[in-house]
Amino acid sequence: MEGKIRTDLALEVRESFPEDDVEIRGVILTEEYDEENKIRISTVVIKDEKGAKAMGKPIGTYITIEAPELENSSEDYNKPVSEAIAEQLRKIAGEHNYDDVLVVGLGNRDVTPDALGPQVVDNLFVTRHLIREFGKEFKERNNLGSVSAISPGVMAQTGMETLEIIKGVIQETKPKLLIVIDALASRSINRLNTTVQLTDTGISPGSGVGNNRKALNMENLGTKVVALGVPTVVDAATIVADTLTEYMQRNGFGEEDIFNFISEVNGQQMYNMFVTPKNIDESVKRISYTISEALNSCFAQKISYLV
Amino acid sequence: MEGKIRTDLALEVRESFPEDDVEIRGVILTEEYDEENKIRISTVVIKDEKGAKAMGKPIGTYITIEAPELENSSEDYNKPVSEAIAEQLRKIAGEHNYDDVLVVGLGNRDVTPDALGPQVVDNLFVTRHLIREFGKEFKERNNLGSVSAISPGVMAQTGMETLEIIKGVIQETKPKLLIVIDALASRSINRLNTTVQLTDTGISPGSGVGNNRKALNMENLGTKVVALGVPTVVDAATIVADTLTEYMQRNGFGEEDIFNFISEVNGQQMYNMFVTPKNIDESVKRISYTISEALNSCFAQKISYLV
Amino acid sequence: MEGKIRTDLALEVRESFPEDDVEIRGVILTEEYDEENKIRISTVVIKDEKGAKAMGKPIGTYITIEAPELENSSEDYNKPVSEAIAEQLRKIAGEHNYDDVLVVGLGNRDVTPDALGPQVVDNLFVTRHLIREFGKEFKERNNLGSVSAISPGVMAQTGMETLEIIKGVIQETKPKLLIVIDALASRSINRLNTTVQLTDTGISPGSGVGNNRKALNMENLGTKVVALGVPTVVDAATIVADTLTEYMQRNGFGEEDIFNFISEVNGQQMYNMFVTPKNIDESVKRISYTISEALNSCFAQKISYLV
Amino acid sequence: MEGKIRTDLALEVRESFPEDDVEIRGVILTEEYDEENKIRISTVVIKDEKGAKAMGKPIGTYITIEAPELENSSEDYNKPVSEAIAEQLRKIAGEHNYDDVLVVGLGNRDVTPDALGPQVVDNLFVTRHLIREFGKEFKERNNLGSVSAISPGVMAQTGMETLEIIKGVIQETKPKLLIVIDALASRSINRLNTTVQLTDTGISPGSGVGNNRKALNMENLGTKVVALGVPTVVDAATIVADTLTEYMQRNGFGEEDIFNFISEVNGQQMYNMFVTPKNIDESVKRISYTISEALNSCFAQKISYLV
Repeated sequence: MEGKIRTDLALEVRESFPEDDVEIRGVILTEEYDEENKIRISTVVIKDEKGAKAMGKPIGTYITIEAPELENSSEDYNKPVSEAIAEQLRKIAGEHNYDDVLVVGLGNRDVTPDALGPQVVDNLFVTRHLIREFGKEFKERNNLGSVSAISPGVMAQTGMETLEIIKGVIQETKPKLLIVIDALASRSINRLNTTVQLTDTGISPGSGVGNNRKALNMENLGTKVVALGVPTVVDAATIVADTLTEYMQRNGFGEEDIFNFISEVNGQQMYNMFVTPKNIDESVKRISYTISEALNSCFAQKISYLV
Repeated sequence: MEGKIRTDLALEVRESFPEDDVEIRGVILTEEYDEENKIRISTVVIKDEKGAKAMGKPIGTYITIEAPELENSSEDYNKPVSEAIAEQLRKIAGEHNYDDVLVVGLGNRDVTPDALGPQVVDNLFVTRHLIREFGKEFKERNNLGSVSAISPGVMAQTGMETLEIIKGVIQETKPKLLIVIDALASRSINRLNTTVQLTDTGISPGSGVGNNRKALNMENLGTKVVALGVPTVVDAATIVADTLTEYMQRNGFGEEDIFNFISEVNGQQMYNMFVTPKNIDESVKRISYTISEALNSCFAQKISYLV
Repeated sequence: MEGKIRTDLALEVRESFPEDDVEIRGVILTEEYDEENKIRISTVVIKDEKGAKAMGKPIGTYITIEAPELENSSEDYNKPVSEAIAEQLRKIAGEHNYDDVLVVGLGNRDVTPDALGPQVVDNLFVTRHLIREFGKEFKERNNLGSVSAISPGVMAQTGMETLEIIKGVIQETKPKLLIVIDALASRSINRLNTTVQLTDTGISPGSGVGNNRKALNMENLGTKVVALGVPTVVDAATIVADTLTEYMQRNGFGEEDIFNFISEVNGQQMYNMFVTPKNIDESVKRISYTISEALNSCFAQKISYLV
Repeated sequence: MEGKIRTDLALEVRESFPEDDVEIRGVILTEEYDEENKIRISTVVIKDEKGAKAMGKPIGTYITIEAPELENSSEDYNKPVSEAIAEQLRKIAGEHNYDDVLVVGLGNRDVTPDALGPQVVDNLFVTRHLIREFGKEFKERNNLGSVSAISPGVMAQTGMETLEIIKGVIQETKPKLLIVIDALASRSINRLNTTVQLTDTGISPGSGVGNNRKALNMENLGTKVVALGVPTVVDAATIVADTLTEYMQRNGFGEEDIFNFISEVNGQQMYNMFVTPKNIDESVKRISYTISEALNSCFAQKISYLV
């Protein structure tokens, strides 16, 4: 069934394997849970080609931060979630110390569930131009990383591949680390706008199933890439398939029966349809703010003295 | 199964009856089709209590204008659709001649699929204040109806029932006709943002299934009410139920089996989830504009000389 | 010269009197300064008709809270300013304890400098509907005032006087206190989006110079009204006049010379032109948030447990 | 006095010369007037260094299209204005035939008077990706130019010079013609949002007075550049200076007196303040649409069959 589901979360692919198959070779899953803040952090490491093939995702590390309480809680809850994201980001970005970072906000700002990337970039505190103007002493006194950022828009708006635009910008500005923000699709309604995936494998704009030729990754760009994604939609066909599968498994149907049933049920009508909560505008705004706070705190300790 | 579906369109309720039951007593369905512009107009008249009970909707007339091409076509197509809406609106509003009209845009402007009402009102050409300032001669020379408009917001924003707000406004300004605009839920993805329902039965803000006590209708307001609605979402549970029902009927399952199956499949997870096309922002904007053009053309012939 | 200036701030009218005229009869000015937070609070009390005539404003109390640092400071500064506003609001609203409050956000949300009122209302935590649903016990347990709110739009959008709309809403919902939020004009660029005026005299929508017949005040509404305003624009003609007056006074010109000069300088071209800072969108958003926080803290102590 | 005024319009610089100096050497001014549509087209050609020095602008052609009626008229008026812009654009862009065009929308989309560029780009019909996908036959059948577009944001948002971003994008995508859209400052309130300047000299983002090192022009980019600008603000200091100058000249003051007077009058307070009409949001939206229609009609004849 794995081929049928549509998810951009490695964790969900991993969950889709039968329960007795807990030890897929080449894939390691570890989990930790912050009881106080109700934040779960799961790390999927795909170690080799065998794991990559089983998972349908490139070799690398995928960290998922789940904070389901985000949906119901007050503004104060934003802080521990943002700190958890920052901590995991520091882990996956490695020794880079956030110096010379280019943040790329993928997506279409006029389409709510796709506006996550641009909204995160809108809230970022960029510094590269200030450092170039005021010099190294300014940078060190304020303990600042050099941060630049761009929301290039999507191909339907620009007529250009995102890879073309970003490649050009990198050539001119030579960042050492790229952080790419994008909206994802998940399988589970409960993860919408409350979950963040971090990965060091890069990202393919406009698709979960990837045309690798156009991916924003180390291979194509020559720069380290960390992708940060948030599921903001569930594919309508996926949700129908999942609901049915669960029911049919519980009622003893075999895998082939289920497969045939769902193929027939999900026709053309579902194409390009998405399931979202009604308050999607508000949810995307909130998680975008949480992420931008996480990034800002990574880039600059003393930011409040500056703004 | 009728009780299970969630639709605000009388046409869809009518369609949900078995095919051999074409003559429900108390309900009349007529159709016309504009071949050139690909616009279908269906009129459901619920004549008596028997029909009302069968349909689960109040006695009255429900006109549905379907223009599926809106989704794919150029700006020029806006015109025939807007004219069709204006023509049906004139029919259902009766002799009122659009004098002393209050247009009410229901819904939450910050939630895209619910923003239809406020967006229509934003594009309206209101005249009541001009006529009060420049007098009757001005009104007649410009062939103007007296139009006022308000987007009251939803109860979660105002803390007030919409009925309370509108009742108060009516007491102060004494309009003779109320046109209430709202976003609806339909069963069919294909009708989203391409279909308009007009009815003379009023509308219950915030629900298809209605708490009649709070309905905006003649009974509660003492003023003639025409409700104009556009389906902008499909309830996620409805779409799963419909997809399954179709499949199971085709495979010979009985009605009870289907009912039990769906009840089990649609659990809590679907609650408050909606299916929308990804370009919902753009689609709502387009149909809102089409509707406001229809209303503007009803209210004033010579509008372009004035603006 | 007083007749020439355009300001909605009583403090600025008071400042416009010659320095040696510090004791205008019927007008009392007191000031306090919070050194730590750099917030100045000035209270102008117009005690009688003589004072009202001299000031060109109705008898009553006008409290001005100036926080010039808002323009340059970090998010943390929002808190002391919001507390200062809340404290003065409690003072001017009197014993009302914020029970049964209706907040009215005047202005046009699509015109940035006029969007203050709607933006404040957008951030309010309204409770009236919750209290009506969950009852008195819920209200008391959560220490909640009953709050409702509306952004009626401006006459060019609705075709109705704001007074008509609000009068109707009051008749239906019977609030005990009205808080009306509006954008104002000031004389001084330095006060834009950093100053709040509170008054118990009501407000005339759409004009600093008031058509009293349409004012939202106790006389017209039968309900106590507190108006909260923020200067978001300076009239272009005013700024030219002020700049010139200052220069000519310094150079020894007499009052009549100055008056004639300015009358000639300020021609038709300035009409309906406003001076704003380039970051007006951001500034209005910030002060709106500060004000809504002040209101929310007045209405509910335990709000964070609820949201 | 020329050094004191702040305008990005070559026409206004030209107008600022004394009336008897009609024949500045090196600068040619021609005018035509479309009586029916009330559109004035003025062409200033700066022929040599002497002209460039006198004008304070680079050698090149500056076409100004003035359509003052835009502010008061109906939607229909959009068409002749858009056609006039398209015609002049074809003239100044030369033989390029709009094949392989990159449109750049400069400015900050969150600051209304600066959002012109991004708003124009939002309405463009881009085709480069379609042509690359469907091939040459598709391009020819539909008579399409290859159009790409980007709104890079401003340096305060990106931390990068616009020149860096655009240089990179050009290296990757190799357009033959660059059309750069930007909001300008004018001297005259009457020209705001009703005037378009086209020039083949390029543009310096973020400044009328130009730091040439960062200019988007042929020299820096190696690609032909046409800049299209619309004045959306008047500098507050400029308007005070102009109003005064006019008055003092009429009253016989000498140039030095005027200069000293204004220098003293315009102090620090005016810095970064702008004069705008109150309906700036609406005006910028309208002229942006007019310009995007002009560009779309240049790029594709049969566009309506495609959308």
